[in-house]
Amino acid sequence: MAGPDGHTLTFFMHDILGGSNPTARAVTGIVTNPALSAQVPFAKPNGANLPINTGIPQNPGNSGLINNNNVPFLTGLGGTTGNLVRSNDDKFIGGGYGFPVLNGGQLPSGMTVQKMMFGTLTVFDDELTEGHELGSRLVGKAQGFYVASSEDGTSQTMALTAMFEADGYVDSISFFGVHRTVVSESHLAVMGGTGKYVNARGFATIKTFPAPNQALTDGLETVVQFTVYLA
Amino acid sequence: MAGPDGHTLTFFMHDILGGSNPTARAVTGIVTNPALSAQVPFAKPNGANLPINTGIPQNPGNSGLINNNNVPFLTGLGGTTGNLVRSNDDKFIGGGYGFPVLNGGQLPSGMTVQKMMFGTLTVFDDELTEGHELGSRLVGKAQGFYVASSEDGTSQTMALTAMFEADGYVDSISFFGVHRTVVSESHLAVMGGTGKYVNARGFATIKTFPAPNQALTDGLETVVQFTVYLA
Repeated sequence: MAGPDGHTLTFFMHDILGGSNPTARAVTGIVTNPALSAQVPFAKPNGANLPINTGIPQNPGNSGLINNNNVPFLTGLGGTTGNLVRSNDDKFIGGGYGFPVLNGGQLPSGMTVQKMMFGTLTVFDDELTEGHELGSRLVGKAQGFYVASSEDGTSQTMALTAMFEADGYVDSISFFGVHRTVVSESHLAVMGGTGKYVNARGFATIKTFPAPNQALTDGLETVVQFTVYLA
Repeated sequence: MAGPDGHTLTFFMHDILGGSNPTARAVTGIVTNPALSAQVPFAKPNGANLPINTGIPQNPGNSGLINNNNVPFLTGLGGTTGNLVRSNDDKFIGGGYGFPVLNGGQLPSGMTVQKMMFGTLTVFDDELTEGHELGSRLVGKAQGFYVASSEDGTSQTMALTAMFEADGYVDSISFFGVHRTVVSESHLAVMGGTGKYVNARGFATIKTFPAPNQALTDGLETVVQFTVYLA
């Protein structure tokens, strides 16, 4: 994880929306708006059983879990519109990540789904791994939230703490900044740290890409690569 | 924008609630609480067609846009109670900014609108300009959120990243702190920065005032002057 000079770290964060084991949950915004449940249409087969008329994305009919049918409705860290590709057993096997495939016909004039996402707050508890695969060696957890903070829905203001497992999660680095999904790399500021990172300063570059092996989860995974440069 | 010593910056942030091109959206709190829709009365003519029973401030009857009728219900960065002055075509032309004019008669005993705003989370994507007018030269964007964080509704806890356009938004400064609307000036701490502001430390003073030329937007604009002192 640490670079040769001890001041550079790299790790991968796995953000999973929907599926049977989501690590991120949208708690405000369009997903919680009952009035829109009848107005936002989805391309088949993703449109069935949307739970948005229950206020928050809980589906009691599915043991309280967010199910695959929700995924296209959520805004994640990927941000790229694309076609979701599913296997025959309805798992995501590749394709687009981030914003959903939608029928736009019934949206209010001038409104896009991305615009409607502006303001959506998503809380996460994501695994950090050494390599980019979800099954790679676990190095810690990242907890925090991101808020869709541009009017076109392509930016997320992020506040998070990355906690490292090695010494019982005492070592942590906290970050704040804006993740812009329209550029290949965004920068977050280091707010501070604890444990061996106490008084940390510096920044991180973050890059998102679709999960290399989506089959490991039935949710919609976005992998975020962090490269941290400490002063 | 930069001061003579290169360590002081000033810029102006334009926060627009409501209207056809809002830059800020309240996503939690009273505006999203349907249970209060029947309880919060408004002085005419501002009380018509409040969308609060739709969960988030979307008004499908107005092409999905937040309209002027919403504005008096939102809590912004201005914070001053005052009379909203409207022209004959229902545009704001001056007067109060911030908390609305209300009939208090039907509020629960001991409750004021300001108190009810406590906890409202507002996400913003505001333009930063060199001068105080909305049409002044654009220097960047500020994205983040503010939360009404005093029981009397006069303070906003703010977390934001100011991103500067010059080098493709790589240069940024992130701030955290409490904006107290009852004093003329508040201070925010610099959490850090990126690009040429990496490892930034210091603080900013912020002052709010009503838009100098409200006619440029049909929303309710608050101008926030930032003066940043970097160590």
